[in-house]
Amino acid sequence: MRATVIHGERDIRVDEVPDPVLLPGGSGRDAVVRVVAACVCGSDLWPYRGVERVRAPRRIGHEFVGVVEQVGDAVERVRVGDFVIAPFYVCCSECTNCRNGVSTSCLNGGWWGSEDREGGFADAGQGERVRVPLADGTLVVVPDLDPDSERGRALIPHLLTLSDVMCTGHHAAVSGGVRAGSTVAVVGDGAVGLGAIAAAKRLGATRIVAMSRHADRQALARELGATDVVPERGDDGIARLKEMFDGVGPDVVLECVGTKESMDQALRSARPGGQVGFVGVPAGGPELPVSTMFSTNVGVRGGVAPVRGYIPELLPEVLDGTLRPGIVFDLELPLEQVAEAYAAMDERRATKVLLRP
Amino acid sequence: MRATVIHGERDIRVDEVPDPVLLPGGSGRDAVVRVVAACVCGSDLWPYRGVERVRAPRRIGHEFVGVVEQVGDAVERVRVGDFVIAPFYVCCSECTNCRNGVSTSCLNGGWWGSEDREGGFADAGQGERVRVPLADGTLVVVPDLDPDSERGRALIPHLLTLSDVMCTGHHAAVSGGVRAGSTVAVVGDGAVGLGAIAAAKRLGATRIVAMSRHADRQALARELGATDVVPERGDDGIARLKEMFDGVGPDVVLECVGTKESMDQALRSARPGGQVGFVGVPAGGPELPVSTMFSTNVGVRGGVAPVRGYIPELLPEVLDGTLRPGIVFDLELPLEQVAEAYAAMDERRATKVLLRP
Repeated sequence: MRATVIHGERDIRVDEVPDPVLLPGGSGRDAVVRVVAACVCGSDLWPYRGVERVRAPRRIGHEFVGVVEQVGDAVERVRVGDFVIAPFYVCCSECTNCRNGVSTSCLNGGWWGSEDREGGFADAGQGERVRVPLADGTLVVVPDLDPDSERGRALIPHLLTLSDVMCTGHHAAVSGGVRAGSTVAVVGDGAVGLGAIAAAKRLGATRIVAMSRHADRQALARELGATDVVPERGDDGIARLKEMFDGVGPDVVLECVGTKESMDQALRSARPGGQVGFVGVPAGGPELPVSTMFSTNVGVRGGVAPVRGYIPELLPEVLDGTLRPGIVFDLELPLEQVAEAYAAMDERRATKVLLRP
Repeated sequence: MRATVIHGERDIRVDEVPDPVLLPGGSGRDAVVRVVAACVCGSDLWPYRGVERVRAPRRIGHEFVGVVEQVGDAVERVRVGDFVIAPFYVCCSECTNCRNGVSTSCLNGGWWGSEDREGGFADAGQGERVRVPLADGTLVVVPDLDPDSERGRALIPHLLTLSDVMCTGHHAAVSGGVRAGSTVAVVGDGAVGLGAIAAAKRLGATRIVAMSRHADRQALARELGATDVVPERGDDGIARLKEMFDGVGPDVVLECVGTKESMDQALRSARPGGQVGFVGVPAGGPELPVSTMFSTNVGVRGGVAPVRGYIPELLPEVLDGTLRPGIVFDLELPLEQVAEAYAAMDERRATKVLLRP
């Protein structure tokens, strides 16, 4: 089959790779899914840009939706023909950590594009098909969805965001403690930041500030629920936020970037006793200034988002059209043009690119 | 009057200082309180030990209870003759931060032993009397308490802990998100750590591990609600906690020390998705490892405890005898022997010393 392989810095290709098959002699808990739509993640740009070194060509991608084509003997819940959403990782949904709501720390789980715990390979998402380990634990079935119907085609971009960005934004909001009446600022206007805005809105935040300097993203932010836009950053941004919120700042700041600057912005923007919910993958630090946190009582909570548990919670609202996070996709390309997808996101010509195998 | 002055490293004296008076020409919101009991805080040992440099002789102390002797013209709630508990700081109880429950970030507040915002001096607590700025906002009145009665004498040690250690332990527990059914480990077996144990118990934690190597403190910990004691530290301590809690660790770890080692212990002991509630004054760092927090989803929240807001919540349980945090006092001395009080705590001959002017 055809699948995306990163060969090095700015070297993304679609290569011929082995067709995925159920692991012979395995536990029978895997499945093979035909990918209907996949996408490129902001974090995929890190190896693309060389921030993360690519030592050898490897498969890439971790967000996809598709149709189940084969299931192992031990698979009980997921059935051939089901339309499914895959979270950006593999999990059992049964172990202590999964039961505690932290399926990203699953004791039996793993990551797309790498070996699973039985020695099989879990294909990455940017390809034609994927072997899914622990299919019952990992996949979320969307009932009665025909991907080729008009409804299916309209819903797919929104469903695909549940694989990562929308649910990751939701994790930021949950980690930040957003609730009815909260005031919120969101640092980062990428797809995750935009998802965080939508999440804050549905959790009942009354005022949501998008910190954004780009007109197109400001418009998306407002469409998803932002009530205000602050283009300033650093001390000027903090001064604007203080001015807007009783001279002290918003209750919650959602950090959706992962750089030293964005975390600093978030920590210094929250009001005393406020909370930072963070989901930006930390780009090599920085460490958090514990003395500042001590004196201001600003808490920090977040991390790699356990989206598997959030998908069933958000799915009904996507299906009934009240939650439309798929508007973050502003470019759709065939899988064969995946290199252009990466370039468009890298050069900020696109917020998020949807790929069709 | 007589009051404690720190002159330098390990140089604590009781000196003759000016009697406190209501600030002439001030806003009339201050009061003068006769100190009935005061105590030495773990954080007082930092300048005593030279960890924090003492540049010039200065007044010291910040925990006291007493009887109101004078009130300014604008004081409405607090009355002459009232028995009061002072939190370890001054606050207005009216500003945005106070209303948000973060009275330690009061926009009008201050600290004992320093100038207030009107140019008056707020005496430190380890003396005969204290001028209290913003008396209505700062002081909590204990109704119908005669400090010289048998009941008063029995209650005073417990009431005095509400000034800092018990409420600070409570803040650790609240910041850690302790609730009914939580599993908790407490790092630090000083008075604050012991308060945190009592707080975790009353918030409904079902299992509370005191991490302690000292037999006397282990006994106090058990009396206040610890269900288990783990004397091991570092990797061994973490291994013990994992073993005790489903192989992953407790839900919440309360950090009540403030050193690099104790914060590291706390962060690595909590289960994935757990929370560290921290109240140990950070002794010059360290910064928090954000990548670890990201990968484990362990949150960190806490800081300088807004005890003013907690006193009314905990007071009824102290008054009816269900909460007895005053057992942390294992030495009582007259104010004139304050140097011995510091030495006893420094040399760990006492957990916490009560001073009587």
